[in-house]
Amino acid sequence: MSDHVRQTEQFRWEGIEVGPYKTDGSRFAGVTRQVLFEGGDGLACQLRYFEIEPGGWSSLERHRHAHAVMVIRGRGRVLVGDRVFDLAVHDLVRVPSLTWHQFRAGGETPLGFLCVVDCERDVPEGPDTAALAELRRAPDVAEFLKV
Amino acid sequence: MSDHVRQTEQFRWEGIEVGPYKTDGSRFAGVTRQVLFEGGDGLACQLRYFEIEPGGWSSLERHRHAHAVMVIRGRGRVLVGDRVFDLAVHDLVRVPSLTWHQFRAGGETPLGFLCVVDCERDVPEGPDTAALAELRRAPDVAEFLKV
Repeated sequence: MSDHVRQTEQFRWEGIEVGPYKTDGSRFAGVTRQVLFEGGDGLACQLRYFEIEPGGWSSLERHRHAHAVMVIRGRGRVLVGDRVFDLAVHDLVRVPSLTWHQFRAGGETPLGFLCVVDCERDVPEGPDTAALAELRRAPDVAEFLKV
Repeated sequence: MSDHVRQTEQFRWEGIEVGPYKTDGSRFAGVTRQVLFEGGDGLACQLRYFEIEPGGWSSLERHRHAHAVMVIRGRGRVLVGDRVFDLAVHDLVRVPSLTWHQFRAGGETPLGFLCVVDCERDVPEGPDTAALAELRRAPDVAEFLKV
């Protein structure tokens, strides 16, 4: 990438492709992915921008690597572990290692967020039947989850 | 930090200290620093938020580690290598390894930006007389620099 990349229209950047969120068969709805910084060459992390359309949701997953997230567009909710949090612009979300998480946009606006991850990282896993049953023991989590 | 950190007022976050930009004797004006994510524990990078008050400027420096930057507040300019770029909200700036750089806020509003860096990184260096003379050969850079 060039040393300076302009935002060309809202939440779209010069020369940065709006790509699919995942292509691994995970279940999700209405999510796009833009890699803002690839990492490497003096930087051990990538910075990505994810956008979830109104009513959409990211995959329910966990992995050893952590996520550092900042919301920069819209509103929504997130599951981290066994808690569901409301999200607004500039809120921060930390997803610790091996912690179940899922993002959902609100019904009115997209939810857009930055996410920092290590360039070298493990592959996410989805929940098996037992993990899903465990997560659903909390009524607010059961109501929240999309799988 | 907690798994969810709210923005309590504009560009200030619950429990996150607004600290000095540097304490190493570097020359700068009107800059604060907030560490949004410390890194470690599954994340090799830190995410920081820097804010430069109107008319202020960060230190002129370079180092082996790279910076991945996104502006999230106001307007300003940045020197990267031998080029000066205008900056607006959501613009991206990549500072490659060993590249001179300096940020300046515009006269009217603060310039606030996110910056991703490796947790393990080298110490910045300032320019010596020869490096400064070299940088000042370009008239727009000479006009821009604050040291």
